[in-house]
Amino acid sequence: MRQLCKGNVAVIKGAILAGCRAYYGYPITPASEIAEAAALYIPQVGGTFLQAESEVAAINMVYGAAAAGVRVMTASSGPGLSLMQEGISYIAGAELPCVIVDVVRGGPGLGNIAPEQSDYFAMVKGGGHGNYRNIVVAPASVQEMADLTMLAFELADKYRNPAIVLTDGFVGQMQEPLNLEYREVVAPEKPWSVKGTPETRANLVTSIYLETDALEEHGRAMEAKYIRCRHEEIRYELYRTEDADLLLVGFGIVSRVLRSAVESLRRDGVKAGLFRPITLWPYPSKVLAEVASRVQKILVVELSNGQMLEDVRLAVEGKVPVEFYGRVGGNVPSVEELHHQVMERVGVLV
Amino acid sequence: MRQLCKGNVAVIKGAILAGCRAYYGYPITPASEIAEAAALYIPQVGGTFLQAESEVAAINMVYGAAAAGVRVMTASSGPGLSLMQEGISYIAGAELPCVIVDVVRGGPGLGNIAPEQSDYFAMVKGGGHGNYRNIVVAPASVQEMADLTMLAFELADKYRNPAIVLTDGFVGQMQEPLNLEYREVVAPEKPWSVKGTPETRANLVTSIYLETDALEEHGRAMEAKYIRCRHEEIRYELYRTEDADLLLVGFGIVSRVLRSAVESLRRDGVKAGLFRPITLWPYPSKVLAEVASRVQKILVVELSNGQMLEDVRLAVEGKVPVEFYGRVGGNVPSVEELHHQVMERVGVLV
Amino acid sequence: MRQLCKGNVAVIKGAILAGCRAYYGYPITPASEIAEAAALYIPQVGGTFLQAESEVAAINMVYGAAAAGVRVMTASSGPGLSLMQEGISYIAGAELPCVIVDVVRGGPGLGNIAPEQSDYFAMVKGGGHGNYRNIVVAPASVQEMADLTMLAFELADKYRNPAIVLTDGFVGQMQEPLNLEYREVVAPEKPWSVKGTPETRANLVTSIYLETDALEEHGRAMEAKYIRCRHEEIRYELYRTEDADLLLVGFGIVSRVLRSAVESLRRDGVKAGLFRPITLWPYPSKVLAEVASRVQKILVVELSNGQMLEDVRLAVEGKVPVEFYGRVGGNVPSVEELHHQVMERVGVLV
Amino acid sequence: MRQLCKGNVAVIKGAILAGCRAYYGYPITPASEIAEAAALYIPQVGGTFLQAESEVAAINMVYGAAAAGVRVMTASSGPGLSLMQEGISYIAGAELPCVIVDVVRGGPGLGNIAPEQSDYFAMVKGGGHGNYRNIVVAPASVQEMADLTMLAFELADKYRNPAIVLTDGFVGQMQEPLNLEYREVVAPEKPWSVKGTPETRANLVTSIYLETDALEEHGRAMEAKYIRCRHEEIRYELYRTEDADLLLVGFGIVSRVLRSAVESLRRDGVKAGLFRPITLWPYPSKVLAEVASRVQKILVVELSNGQMLEDVRLAVEGKVPVEFYGRVGGNVPSVEELHHQVMERVGVLV
Repeated sequence: MRQLCKGNVAVIKGAILAGCRAYYGYPITPASEIAEAAALYIPQVGGTFLQAESEVAAINMVYGAAAAGVRVMTASSGPGLSLMQEGISYIAGAELPCVIVDVVRGGPGLGNIAPEQSDYFAMVKGGGHGNYRNIVVAPASVQEMADLTMLAFELADKYRNPAIVLTDGFVGQMQEPLNLEYREVVAPEKPWSVKGTPETRANLVTSIYLETDALEEHGRAMEAKYIRCRHEEIRYELYRTEDADLLLVGFGIVSRVLRSAVESLRRDGVKAGLFRPITLWPYPSKVLAEVASRVQKILVVELSNGQMLEDVRLAVEGKVPVEFYGRVGGNVPSVEELHHQVMERVGVLV
Repeated sequence: MRQLCKGNVAVIKGAILAGCRAYYGYPITPASEIAEAAALYIPQVGGTFLQAESEVAAINMVYGAAAAGVRVMTASSGPGLSLMQEGISYIAGAELPCVIVDVVRGGPGLGNIAPEQSDYFAMVKGGGHGNYRNIVVAPASVQEMADLTMLAFELADKYRNPAIVLTDGFVGQMQEPLNLEYREVVAPEKPWSVKGTPETRANLVTSIYLETDALEEHGRAMEAKYIRCRHEEIRYELYRTEDADLLLVGFGIVSRVLRSAVESLRRDGVKAGLFRPITLWPYPSKVLAEVASRVQKILVVELSNGQMLEDVRLAVEGKVPVEFYGRVGGNVPSVEELHHQVMERVGVLV
Repeated sequence: MRQLCKGNVAVIKGAILAGCRAYYGYPITPASEIAEAAALYIPQVGGTFLQAESEVAAINMVYGAAAAGVRVMTASSGPGLSLMQEGISYIAGAELPCVIVDVVRGGPGLGNIAPEQSDYFAMVKGGGHGNYRNIVVAPASVQEMADLTMLAFELADKYRNPAIVLTDGFVGQMQEPLNLEYREVVAPEKPWSVKGTPETRANLVTSIYLETDALEEHGRAMEAKYIRCRHEEIRYELYRTEDADLLLVGFGIVSRVLRSAVESLRRDGVKAGLFRPITLWPYPSKVLAEVASRVQKILVVELSNGQMLEDVRLAVEGKVPVEFYGRVGGNVPSVEELHHQVMERVGVLV
Repeated sequence: MRQLCKGNVAVIKGAILAGCRAYYGYPITPASEIAEAAALYIPQVGGTFLQAESEVAAINMVYGAAAAGVRVMTASSGPGLSLMQEGISYIAGAELPCVIVDVVRGGPGLGNIAPEQSDYFAMVKGGGHGNYRNIVVAPASVQEMADLTMLAFELADKYRNPAIVLTDGFVGQMQEPLNLEYREVVAPEKPWSVKGTPETRANLVTSIYLETDALEEHGRAMEAKYIRCRHEEIRYELYRTEDADLLLVGFGIVSRVLRSAVESLRRDGVKAGLFRPITLWPYPSKVLAEVASRVQKILVVELSNGQMLEDVRLAVEGKVPVEFYGRVGGNVPSVEELHHQVMERVGVLV
């Protein structure tokens, strides 16, 4: 079915198609339409929507529902995600699947409600305490808001780990055509879950391992699945990179501006290409290194002070110069602005 | 004055000498002795100790006291720090100074109370939302628990930014000689603070900047101070690196084991040296790159699954092979274990 | 259907027959089996069970569900009920129906988990702020735990007001035969509710009335319904009062001991009778005054320091001597003990 | 020293003279000036002011400071007091002294910020769970806001029990002359407190008594002190009651209107008098009964739907007709209105 849909609403439509039947959250601009759509649609399919007392409460309800084997999600923006960091660490440590949407706004602190990509570090690198990783996907369109939310549910269950949909107010608020195919969701069996039934009575969901050797073994097992995830779940998009001298790197809304910049630059003789990571963790480091080996310069563009930049530099390992251009505070660079930035830096490439 | 002192207690002794006069916190093993010492000593110098309702409450009290110009601190372990991530982002965004001690325990989730270094990502890289950085120092002895806490207060005020003392249950629980000199603390003037006085009535402490250009300007100004901090505040320790072929890299408690491993390896003919970062942010990347350029191999050792490893790799940029050895769950490698690990990997260097 | 059932479980069976489809709560001994039964049974009939972050969160979720027109309940014991007092006042002020079960334990403060009736004041008289009343019913058997819960839902809806089931650990923990008839519950229409539908969009559920005249009018309307409730909803039980010289007065578990005491006393020639209020608010003052006019003495027995005693004295207005015997801390008087108490006080009546 | 002062500010001036050195609270209209004055003045005398995360947090901080032997207070209005009911029960159960000010606003629920006396039940009768009583005093002037706050601290310490100053927005917001004499406060010894010192290490402050006999004994001991309090701490005011046929009864701001009504009625030949309880608990029942025995009618006037009315009726025991006139929602009756009410009811008395 083809429809005109807002990004934040597409998240919930995708979630329902993915079999999500529980949503616990607390509203915050610019993520509130996700809660609103969840409140409207999830009860219609027999699921539960609940506005919790706070983000701390919400993420712990997600923890509980995930332990019971339900496909469950929450959504918020930066400040709310920060409040959820303890819960996310607990969910990861207990090896439970859930989906969390971060519609990034301007920060730090209260900041403003305009779009940034400045929660990259908080979602992709750090966040909560201890050795764990979030799976992170970054939609660049309303269609992907639905599609990558569905993917997030699949990856979360496959790896029993939190999966983050990292997006921003632009993609969340824009309206675009959305194609959704109704499909039979076969909810995965979760024999490890605790459902209050006799069959699951012996199951234990926990992140506590008092003995050091037991916790080390648990950590090793988690690490092993993260290594497997790095091998199997890389998603990215290449655009006109075959003959490129200049590689533009950006994700989410930025990648759409960069795509136009590629066209614009090529019209002026600069052989530009675009590398768009779709999974931010695991990061497509290997393919980026391979593409990078064929270009003369890389320009990373982010709505931040340079966060994904570290992952690009880790992938490229100094083999090609990596430059950075960022806007913050809710400002998004225009095609002209990026064209100009490139021409200033890489004029010699022409 | 020379005394035998526990690491967690030394933190508070250093804090008081640094002029800290307010502590808000919530107890958690293995950080509880810090709260206990704070409750005992801070009121004795006319300060305030308060056990808050939760870590969320505690960090917001720190926010308030910092805004009022008081030298203020809190301490916790992983789960508590995760709950504080929103507040830390607010404090950073409002450009307020405070000191936060993280006595890292095993994680993620509830984990156990044995030592790890697995909050490196959460404190040094990510954490809360938005574009900001924590200043992070890593003590390796009881003496440094006091000294680096004092330094943290100075850096926090100098840069009006949260400063983290990242340590672990080993350093927190050990007893060692501590030398403290009583000195006159000249509390810095904080003309920007909000004290409820007529002079400070016009001051505004906030992290909200509704206009995108205003938030961008605020972000640029914060970035500028972070760049200045990177230039001026690097602290590290080198040990027998002049002629080293093999560079061991580790911080905190691990660096003490590595120092013994250097001796042990040299007895077997391996020219090993030690690089110990004392500031984890800003990371001593430039000096590490310089030292790395003279060795044949680097081995990073952490009580984690490899977190600081990223900063080493970012510094070295592929110029020397970087290997990793980690223990987690509260297990700490012995000198023999590290000697053995090195011999297996770098036998050819002998 | 006749079954052997625990009092706390009977509450939920009654609730479900009454059409209750939502339960929000936080566990506390000796009320936890109510939450446990709710978690087990309410989802089976398509309803929602949720363990909230705290009692404060739970009662506000009850507020929300009640506003949406759902038959909703919670349960707790003393400390939890105290935390709910603000929410109960809001629910009463917004004129919303809900059922709240208080399985009274020993207090004040943490006290212990043994039965008392010492929340009488908190539930029947005071509690939250402002001019409002709780409807309060007091079961004395497992059968009544179900029946009076059903009645509570009816009264709550009829008067759009919180209805309390005030019971204790004895009645909650005992097992007795329970007869339940399956019946078609016709959920009442609630045209005033806010369901997120176009029809209910114009509805407003609130307790705020900024203008003094508006709040006074609101208060008068609430008062009018309370007066109607006093006229229409009195429930009580009389036992051998026709010829009684001595009237024993007690509710809940105490009334069962008193009934045996009546028999025991009559065997010794004391013409005793029992007055058992079933509704504690509205209190059966008129009928009690009428019965009291025919006796020579009244003995009130409570598991408290004399709380219902005030309502007895208000009803009797000094026309007959009213004495009191209470046990607290979880101790329950035996038949012999009461027999002895009576003989000491009223020997002259024989 | 004579000064013009607002009622809410006089509370803090009295508190400081009484030796109060700690204030924990959360602001709410119409009590916020108390917090504001506390924040301004209490640190000036070396005390602690802290705005907590919530009223739940605030009352538990009061609990902690009281346990440490500090004279401590908080203040709020209806909704905040409701949230504190659990904490108040704990403080009473642990037999700790503290002072709590309730500046009553219109309720229930959110209501409005205009004055009522409708928290009488919540403060005087019920409130939190379990067998305990609050000591309650009711000021009728700015001078009494200071004086009765001082008395509250004395009674709280004498009986180791919470003492409530029950007032309203009228008395809190009005400005009147205030006379305060500076005096040397001899802080009472509290050998039972827990100060973190070697001497107090063996002390235990708790409300938990797991054994039923132990809790019963604790309850009996509390009851004994309440009986002593009833004997020793009655405060009230009589005005022209010697020859009165009609007794007007009211407290706080209402008593001031009633005093003028007495004058007004006597000018019309009605021999009216005024009974003003100053302690609401213990209630001056005995003296009221005595005065009542000499009049022909009683009219109780409250800013509520008739709450203190119950205590009047309990005292009078039906010996004289007791009528009631109340205004709610923030409306306060005028002298003319009360004159008219009386003439309608008691014209025959002239």
